[in-house]
Amino acid sequence: MVSKAEIMKVLAGYDPKMITIATVCSHSSLQIFAGARREGFRTLGIAIGKAPKFYDAFPLAKPDEFFVVEKYEDIISRAGELAKKNVILIPHGSFVEYLGAKRFADIPLPTYGNRAVLEWESDRDIEREWLTSAGCKMPALIKDPRDIDRPVLVKYHGAKGGRGFFIAKDYKDFKMGIDLTQKFNIQEYILGTRYYLHYFYSPIKTDGYKLSKGTLELMGMDRRDETNIDEIYKLGAQEELKRMEIYPSFVVTGNIPLVIRESLLPKVFEMGEKVVERSIELFGGMIGPFCLETIVNDKLEFYVFEISGRIVAGTNLNISGSPYSDLIEPGISTGQRIARDIKEGARLGKLEEIIS
Amino acid sequence: MVSKAEIMKVLAGYDPKMITIATVCSHSSLQIFAGARREGFRTLGIAIGKAPKFYDAFPLAKPDEFFVVEKYEDIISRAGELAKKNVILIPHGSFVEYLGAKRFADIPLPTYGNRAVLEWESDRDIEREWLTSAGCKMPALIKDPRDIDRPVLVKYHGAKGGRGFFIAKDYKDFKMGIDLTQKFNIQEYILGTRYYLHYFYSPIKTDGYKLSKGTLELMGMDRRDETNIDEIYKLGAQEELKRMEIYPSFVVTGNIPLVIRESLLPKVFEMGEKVVERSIELFGGMIGPFCLETIVNDKLEFYVFEISGRIVAGTNLNISGSPYSDLIEPGISTGQRIARDIKEGARLGKLEEIIS
Amino acid sequence: MVSKAEIMKVLAGYDPKMITIATVCSHSSLQIFAGARREGFRTLGIAIGKAPKFYDAFPLAKPDEFFVVEKYEDIISRAGELAKKNVILIPHGSFVEYLGAKRFADIPLPTYGNRAVLEWESDRDIEREWLTSAGCKMPALIKDPRDIDRPVLVKYHGAKGGRGFFIAKDYKDFKMGIDLTQKFNIQEYILGTRYYLHYFYSPIKTDGYKLSKGTLELMGMDRRDETNIDEIYKLGAQEELKRMEIYPSFVVTGNIPLVIRESLLPKVFEMGEKVVERSIELFGGMIGPFCLETIVNDKLEFYVFEISGRIVAGTNLNISGSPYSDLIEPGISTGQRIARDIKEGARLGKLEEIIS
Repeated sequence: MVSKAEIMKVLAGYDPKMITIATVCSHSSLQIFAGARREGFRTLGIAIGKAPKFYDAFPLAKPDEFFVVEKYEDIISRAGELAKKNVILIPHGSFVEYLGAKRFADIPLPTYGNRAVLEWESDRDIEREWLTSAGCKMPALIKDPRDIDRPVLVKYHGAKGGRGFFIAKDYKDFKMGIDLTQKFNIQEYILGTRYYLHYFYSPIKTDGYKLSKGTLELMGMDRRDETNIDEIYKLGAQEELKRMEIYPSFVVTGNIPLVIRESLLPKVFEMGEKVVERSIELFGGMIGPFCLETIVNDKLEFYVFEISGRIVAGTNLNISGSPYSDLIEPGISTGQRIARDIKEGARLGKLEEIIS
Repeated sequence: MVSKAEIMKVLAGYDPKMITIATVCSHSSLQIFAGARREGFRTLGIAIGKAPKFYDAFPLAKPDEFFVVEKYEDIISRAGELAKKNVILIPHGSFVEYLGAKRFADIPLPTYGNRAVLEWESDRDIEREWLTSAGCKMPALIKDPRDIDRPVLVKYHGAKGGRGFFIAKDYKDFKMGIDLTQKFNIQEYILGTRYYLHYFYSPIKTDGYKLSKGTLELMGMDRRDETNIDEIYKLGAQEELKRMEIYPSFVVTGNIPLVIRESLLPKVFEMGEKVVERSIELFGGMIGPFCLETIVNDKLEFYVFEISGRIVAGTNLNISGSPYSDLIEPGISTGQRIARDIKEGARLGKLEEIIS
Repeated sequence: MVSKAEIMKVLAGYDPKMITIATVCSHSSLQIFAGARREGFRTLGIAIGKAPKFYDAFPLAKPDEFFVVEKYEDIISRAGELAKKNVILIPHGSFVEYLGAKRFADIPLPTYGNRAVLEWESDRDIEREWLTSAGCKMPALIKDPRDIDRPVLVKYHGAKGGRGFFIAKDYKDFKMGIDLTQKFNIQEYILGTRYYLHYFYSPIKTDGYKLSKGTLELMGMDRRDETNIDEIYKLGAQEELKRMEIYPSFVVTGNIPLVIRESLLPKVFEMGEKVVERSIELFGGMIGPFCLETIVNDKLEFYVFEISGRIVAGTNLNISGSPYSDLIEPGISTGQRIARDIKEGARLGKLEEIIS
């Protein structure tokens, strides 16, 4: 991982009046660019092969400039050019995934947030250590498939975007479904409604919901829309469909807005607070937007099945605010909130605390 | 129930410039406080045990003051203190439920709306009388379980928050599922999509959709998100799941936004209109926000399965307006609409018509 | 079909300062009227029998005037009166359906958009020719029921509003479900999540996402909410329900908002672009709002199962903007976008290009 000292040296060479917010043209880039513009920043979109045409359709989100590379790795080799443009990078899911977490950690350019989070969220074991030690309930792991005594989710290692999962209700199901040539883990299937909670932690903000350092915000929430699991019931019972070799899959295609019962908000904040406090102890803090991916069962208990240590695509719903962020500042998006944090960091001389 | 005369005496002692909107810190309190602030009121949050921290995260909704009580009953015993603060209480689902409808009716403080509605909605028999005499179709009641000839919903008396329901498709199902030690009723299961319609009736507003007295508004609509019934299909057929002792439950965890086919709006207004007109005849009128909880079948017929005579949590989606309320006044929430009604009532010298 | 020359003659007689936007009071009329008002137009609502009362509840959407006819055909016979009011008609789904596509084409009044699209979307065969020749994947047609080797959707000809569909998983299902006295077609059932994409094509706009002529916009998207298919799973497996003679139906009752994975947007625009370009070649162009009704499978491939060549009811969600249109101009609806196009057309002397 590139050292903080090195990054700070790059940042020291920047023209503070020409800071440019940059990210890869995908995932949540529309709101990142739109939000940066609202806060008065220049914007730069990193594109592979050629500048995507569809930004032309969104004048308020189109970056001021495209930076076209041949392949993602070129972002590292051409970092000098980007540094000359006073670029601060905003990580998002696709940016990190396409480049790879290791390579992302090596980019010698100022990046919003703490890159140390990458390590903690990319490995399921230490992610679990972090979350459970912060007091989050997680679905139980089942070591031995013969112990399957309730519905489980079998996930192959490195499963991307929702393929490579299957549900088994007992050992027989497991045996019929499993591909033993791949690594997998077996997780209790928690039955309940899903809430993907979009938080924002700023170590430099001083008023609001206070943590040991800085403040926590709730920007919104969503539910992922997954093909084909969210529509398969229309065809009939899965038990029947299996005979036709039709199986459920879990590929995210979009997001649906929702709000949570207000009486659950204290618990929502308690979870967010503890996860951030624990991150401060473990690796200096998860900075900026993050998401707890939760299930609420019928005893109104939360189970966290994953954490994303950066902006998630569900925030794309809230490009003009959400029922939660509108109570902070009407119309603010997570993309804009990131830009605001950078603007405040620059104003207060505290960029070092939010950039790595 | 506290008498109207007594309430009016309390209200007469208030400083009209210092009216404070108060409610219990739960359910829909964020929008009630935020809406009251937008209309220029002071706000007070009644909290049990201690002031909840999460309001710090929502600066536009945080009440000016918390009033901490040990237990809900203290709201009655400490009403004198609240009266000195010129408090008008806003009822919501949790407020009424926690305190109990009877005790709520006894609070010797000015309360928005007509407390007589509590009696009419807390008893399923007279609720049914009200709604059917207003022309609403409701799911049929089945007296004798042996007459179950189609899917039914069996509800235990006093079932709260969605537990204590089950679906039976025939008498056999019923016999297997029923706990005969509890009281229950059996209701036809209406198959169709659900629309929770958020209305607002103001007896003092004169322009708009006119009733015999005052006007009716449509503020928005939602669908409740219920654990685990809204996710259970992913595990397979319920018939299969029963063998694993996994049963559906109906606990509300949140709300999802939607709009209804525009050609159904005349019927939506007709239902709201008739229910209000009938309430005026029966108990002097259901004032302020209310919700008809409906199912639309594939003949596009509405069935009303419940009424809530006050603000419902589904309005939390519309804290910055809805596709319906935006056509009345952009950005107005039900919480703000309540505050507006109180402000107008004060301005017109008509508080007596909307307070009880 | 009334000739363009005739329409242009009518339009030439209009007072350009008194243009009145008119449509039938249903479907998406609230946003059409509200949008027209925002752009400074007079509005007129065509109603059958009597003026609907519910518009009184929406002061920002209530038309300036109602034009009450006895039956839809009177719109044609009384066209002279409407011409005197300088009326430009906005077509929507109910308007065209109630009047019939053929009669709609004959109305001797200026109508927004290109009426030639009616012919291309009302016949499934030429609709398929248009879409597939534009490069859209569509569900395969199965000619012979004995070839059913996967789930299919059987649609009776002229099925309206979602009745008259059924799902068959094999030939046996088909035989049990089919009514051979009716005409039907058999379509592959594509399993995946549904995105109804709301586009806007203006031949007279010059900046933005450019086509061979004019520009393409993405105003929003939705998912249709259908009774009873979207709730039937709660009762148990369809296989079981059939024994009780409970069958799925597909009647649209409303719409749910959502956003799509940002990485799918290039494909969304590519589809919209090709469909418009092809429409220009085939019949002079589909002008104004249109909707591609798509399914995304778990390989992230789009299937288009239908096109609507005018405003769809799903845009009713976005009466105050959507996460997409807000990046064009905050708060703009499709209804307002139509009015804007007419205003721009008038300003630029190009009404002829968007009116027929």
